[in-house]
Amino acid sequence: MSSDAKAAVFVKSEDFQGTRIRGPDFNIPHELDALLKSYETIGFQANGLARAMELINKMRNWRLSDEPVNPDSQTEELDPSVRANTKCSIFLGYTSNLVSSGLREIIRFLVQNNYVSCLVTTAGGIEEDLIKCLGPTFVTPNGEFNLDGAGLRRRGLNRIGNLLVPNDNYCKFEDWVVPILDKMVEEQEGEEKVKWTPSKVIERLGNEIDDEESILYWAAKNKIPVFCPALTDGSLGDMMYFHTYKTETPLSVDIVGDIRRLNDLSIKSKKAGMIILGGGVCKHQIANSMLFRNGADYSVYINTGQEFDGSDSGARPDEAVSWGKIKIDGESVKIYADATLVFPLVVAGTFGKDHWAAQKKAEEAKAQA
Amino acid sequence: MSSDAKAAVFVKSEDFQGTRIRGPDFNIPHELDALLKSYETIGFQANGLARAMELINKMRNWRLSDEPVNPDSQTEELDPSVRANTKCSIFLGYTSNLVSSGLREIIRFLVQNNYVSCLVTTAGGIEEDLIKCLGPTFVTPNGEFNLDGAGLRRRGLNRIGNLLVPNDNYCKFEDWVVPILDKMVEEQEGEEKVKWTPSKVIERLGNEIDDEESILYWAAKNKIPVFCPALTDGSLGDMMYFHTYKTETPLSVDIVGDIRRLNDLSIKSKKAGMIILGGGVCKHQIANSMLFRNGADYSVYINTGQEFDGSDSGARPDEAVSWGKIKIDGESVKIYADATLVFPLVVAGTFGKDHWAAQKKAEEAKAQA
Amino acid sequence: MSSDAKAAVFVKSEDFQGTRIRGPDFNIPHELDALLKSYETIGFQANGLARAMELINKMRNWRLSDEPVNPDSQTEELDPSVRANTKCSIFLGYTSNLVSSGLREIIRFLVQNNYVSCLVTTAGGIEEDLIKCLGPTFVTPNGEFNLDGAGLRRRGLNRIGNLLVPNDNYCKFEDWVVPILDKMVEEQEGEEKVKWTPSKVIERLGNEIDDEESILYWAAKNKIPVFCPALTDGSLGDMMYFHTYKTETPLSVDIVGDIRRLNDLSIKSKKAGMIILGGGVCKHQIANSMLFRNGADYSVYINTGQEFDGSDSGARPDEAVSWGKIKIDGESVKIYADATLVFPLVVAGTFGKDHWAAQKKAEEAKAQA
Amino acid sequence: MSSDAKAAVFVKSEDFQGTRIRGPDFNIPHELDALLKSYETIGFQANGLARAMELINKMRNWRLSDEPVNPDSQTEELDPSVRANTKCSIFLGYTSNLVSSGLREIIRFLVQNNYVSCLVTTAGGIEEDLIKCLGPTFVTPNGEFNLDGAGLRRRGLNRIGNLLVPNDNYCKFEDWVVPILDKMVEEQEGEEKVKWTPSKVIERLGNEIDDEESILYWAAKNKIPVFCPALTDGSLGDMMYFHTYKTETPLSVDIVGDIRRLNDLSIKSKKAGMIILGGGVCKHQIANSMLFRNGADYSVYINTGQEFDGSDSGARPDEAVSWGKIKIDGESVKIYADATLVFPLVVAGTFGKDHWAAQKKAEEAKAQA
Repeated sequence: MSSDAKAAVFVKSEDFQGTRIRGPDFNIPHELDALLKSYETIGFQANGLARAMELINKMRNWRLSDEPVNPDSQTEELDPSVRANTKCSIFLGYTSNLVSSGLREIIRFLVQNNYVSCLVTTAGGIEEDLIKCLGPTFVTPNGEFNLDGAGLRRRGLNRIGNLLVPNDNYCKFEDWVVPILDKMVEEQEGEEKVKWTPSKVIERLGNEIDDEESILYWAAKNKIPVFCPALTDGSLGDMMYFHTYKTETPLSVDIVGDIRRLNDLSIKSKKAGMIILGGGVCKHQIANSMLFRNGADYSVYINTGQEFDGSDSGARPDEAVSWGKIKIDGESVKIYADATLVFPLVVAGTFGKDHWAAQKKAEEAKAQA
Repeated sequence: MSSDAKAAVFVKSEDFQGTRIRGPDFNIPHELDALLKSYETIGFQANGLARAMELINKMRNWRLSDEPVNPDSQTEELDPSVRANTKCSIFLGYTSNLVSSGLREIIRFLVQNNYVSCLVTTAGGIEEDLIKCLGPTFVTPNGEFNLDGAGLRRRGLNRIGNLLVPNDNYCKFEDWVVPILDKMVEEQEGEEKVKWTPSKVIERLGNEIDDEESILYWAAKNKIPVFCPALTDGSLGDMMYFHTYKTETPLSVDIVGDIRRLNDLSIKSKKAGMIILGGGVCKHQIANSMLFRNGADYSVYINTGQEFDGSDSGARPDEAVSWGKIKIDGESVKIYADATLVFPLVVAGTFGKDHWAAQKKAEEAKAQA
Repeated sequence: MSSDAKAAVFVKSEDFQGTRIRGPDFNIPHELDALLKSYETIGFQANGLARAMELINKMRNWRLSDEPVNPDSQTEELDPSVRANTKCSIFLGYTSNLVSSGLREIIRFLVQNNYVSCLVTTAGGIEEDLIKCLGPTFVTPNGEFNLDGAGLRRRGLNRIGNLLVPNDNYCKFEDWVVPILDKMVEEQEGEEKVKWTPSKVIERLGNEIDDEESILYWAAKNKIPVFCPALTDGSLGDMMYFHTYKTETPLSVDIVGDIRRLNDLSIKSKKAGMIILGGGVCKHQIANSMLFRNGADYSVYINTGQEFDGSDSGARPDEAVSWGKIKIDGESVKIYADATLVFPLVVAGTFGKDHWAAQKKAEEAKAQA
Repeated sequence: MSSDAKAAVFVKSEDFQGTRIRGPDFNIPHELDALLKSYETIGFQANGLARAMELINKMRNWRLSDEPVNPDSQTEELDPSVRANTKCSIFLGYTSNLVSSGLREIIRFLVQNNYVSCLVTTAGGIEEDLIKCLGPTFVTPNGEFNLDGAGLRRRGLNRIGNLLVPNDNYCKFEDWVVPILDKMVEEQEGEEKVKWTPSKVIERLGNEIDDEESILYWAAKNKIPVFCPALTDGSLGDMMYFHTYKTETPLSVDIVGDIRRLNDLSIKSKKAGMIILGGGVCKHQIANSMLFRNGADYSVYINTGQEFDGSDSGARPDEAVSWGKIKIDGESVKIYADATLVFPLVVAGTFGKDHWAAQKKAEEAKAQA
């Protein structure tokens, strides 16, 4: 055996210093905070989760007053109190299935408390929120993904992964939504000549549903716009389809108005963060709007897509940098995981933690008073 | 060691008969046909590829005359020659990135030769076809997916997986499309009062682009509708956005009209097949339209999505059965692969093979005459 | 539009009752317990995590006394106190990279506290534990997976995903291990005529490393066997390779002895549970040993593999049922995720929770005394 | 709207030149060669497939005479005819499931024709080849992956993805292998004092199986070593286990001897290429052996693993560069796909193509004579 072999195996390394990998020592009790903190030094995706929390906290804590005033700018905001109150806009995207899942309640918490600036989703992300106000969604026995499709169809049970939605829920949705569609056509054809866009339709539905469990209820109440360019691609589209055969003048829903509303929101944001759960239109649409401001400042992707097939869904943040959708000096992370596993942790460790601390403080203050 | 252990290991099996696994014997030369034929008995995804070809051939060969006449039906077509010429509708869906890739030429072949009934895609699936008429897309050096995003942004090169699109192509696209948008607004506001829908916009763009390389050129020529509910989610949306600031009355693009057009097409199809490359809206939108006919008859999915995250993109055909999007007795297959690897084979082994045979026969006939 | 379309869309569903999907209400503070409890009704993989905790608790809580005595058996244990103390054997498997990650400390916690019955891993799962006693492993800057390989090689930094291991650590490992190999050859050739197997080599290394941070230290101390049939497939194999050129009689490591030790352990377990992190040999070897007892009773898989390629790594538990590796009436779950994300939660919510409660109780008792 | 937005969207690009993306024009007939050629400019994984064929052709065509003689070396081969006949060693690795699939026949073709230098696999990769000589493996009906495990167990049918292996095949394997194990123990204990290693055991089994369909038959005949450190992790291990209870002195199989044989082979190769199908030990073991020669020259990985979980199975070639397992200036590619889809194409387009051309030429020469 040659000495070359030994030399190749025992190459000397430079003196490297960095964060040392070390997991939590469970001989010591770990509550949620300590456990999440420990993820920073576990490596692989655990590290990604820690970084996602770090970036979301940056989104939450940034204020315009943190930045130096640009003396050359003629448009810059100068009022210190305005600067101190100008926050980073948070664009939250999510796919339909996550509203079918229990992440719906977590998204609602964020909207209810005004923690995000706008939402982007696909059709199911709209209708599933409303339908859940009309009937429940269930988990399959033992969480199985393999129930026989033909048997389920005969029983009228629609499967979404390991969830089941009774088809009756969609019948109830029809009963609820058709009168609203009737009114929307009236308003379109009447004096107001309302020009419907997906975000206006969604706001209307949010106003009609009288249920504090609903994401859209709170979005409407808190004036948080909800974008969904492919609004017809689901049950709501089914209802609109049937409705065109029922009405003299069909409803018209214009998507150009919404692209203007979304891009304007991006442009006027002094700082912008993306939190995107899943892929497809909700991911691409938010990232595309960032182009108009030369990129997002902070980006958190959580999805299971892979880059090897060249899909936008699977693209890493660095691909978005090449397009100008993420700033060259922006900070970003992608967690490769089903969002149901990690988003509850991410929110608990950022928005939730501070919300609960503030709550406690308020209660203590109240108790003292 | 107990005899139970031996019994457990050496359980007897029933006499099972089925298709035996055996790969191609490469000591014998294999041309394309023989190679593709050999996939039937290789197993795993090779088997899926063989089944996809089988199902696509069923889609292609089915005629209404193959089915018994239903004597009770009052609406049934009875004319034998009409029955013999009534084919299965093929709904082809694909994601944007596949038009960026070289699958564009294969999709164009299918559209050019009227081999499919309609197309469903997302915004990039529209604009990338047009933009390729204005400037080329490149493969990265050595097909790498890891070029530095910041460096690419500085050079104005947009990355899509291992492809690069110079940003100038999008500048050229603006030059080309803005005058068309101007005219579309004129027609909307003029006497015709054109009510634009995504499919009408796309047909118009297909008519304007004078390039036989284009999918949309042939789709327009052959009256094959192209659906794209989220048409604003990409460069075309960027152009429409800027255009709203340039025009007095903005363009309006209505998505309700298109959901009617698509679902009507599904309902009136005597038989329906889905070929869907990738996930997201293009997959869900086609499958959703199948609901109105109680399910597709033949379904071929090619994508890299997984079901464990409950996404529609990753859902197996059997999930669609539970919803009535695929018939209870429908036939289906999903190939788990990047479509660029397998779609060329699938098309070569079905549409292509017969196209080439017919071509050869025609040439021989011509030579003999 | 035909009435058939309406009928297809509005199929009636049976009256289904099950567990309702509902996420945690973050308006109410959630500590770790409550958060983990909420996963049961989130769906998708969150549900899998909840089920994994349920099954692990079944593994932990089962006692032979829970089962009726079989009156026909001639070998059955009858002594009630023995029955009350006979537990389920827990077979823990994990891949090499997880020892490189911070899961090492969590695995060590399990071994240190005698919470598992045996370990199965691959070569890196052995040597990385030892090497970490000699030098640290680091996380890459920002947790990036894309550092240039050529640059790292020049700097002597070995990359494992988003971890970096200075090559000097392997040089230190050589210094440490060669004298032990010398002694092992002596014992092999001396009077004891030691017949080395991987598990004996590993136990010896565990005895030599004097470090409470080490998994192998505790495994040796607690007599928990560690199996690793492919022990030569890594740095330890490199050292053994060089050593064959240094010694007159080479070390011999027999793998037949270990397959007997492992399978015997499986057979004599009155109940058996598998917890397997990752795929490859560590997954297959444990499952294969279960065949000798007609299957495992409880099985928890955590990995990112997919079944579509027919790999054992990606196979669902139900494939193992067909082989008799999981009992026909066994309970099982697979979580599709990087183990670094979920294993800390799984252990915290099962072993950890009870460990900490017992600790607290002991401290309180001590304080009272 | 600010002009900044326009500037961000319409960034100018540098003048980039590269290979243009363009798919095959199926209006022109495509035979296998032309189709495979077209993959070069399709992008994404199609491009990877083209590159894999390019690198394998480099492995096949390289001769030592292509390299300049190093005048300083004292060990260099100088004889021009030896140099002209010294080839690149090709290390072929594959997982067990691929031998269960129809890739077995393709691997056999490579071994039969001496196209590879050594094989590395896991236990199933050995025994499945032998078992197929004793009884067939089947594909499931319609290639389904979802047959009920409990039902299969009751029928004695073992599932591997969408393959079924009757358990009787394993009973036949016992009948066949036990007498061989008896003889092997005899030889171990007799005068020869044979020291068995996995590669020696495998060679013996290859010599015993008298079947030209077998990979191992040809490997033994052609003196191509087959490495399998975890040889006991499967049915062969089951047989060895039972055998230890049947024999006075158990069989001993030493893994140190094999690590020496493999690493020596790596070191003495003047050029080395890796072709690795799947992950786990077969991937790591080959790559690890390359360390002793400061890296492989050409590397082709085909698997479905992902890097995000830090597994070696999913690691990109560039991670191996950091370890010195692939040369800093080595060429490599990873195809992200199930090998059953792409390996038949890869072999047909490289080894097969030239094999068939040579065959044809020989036949023509014969016909002329």
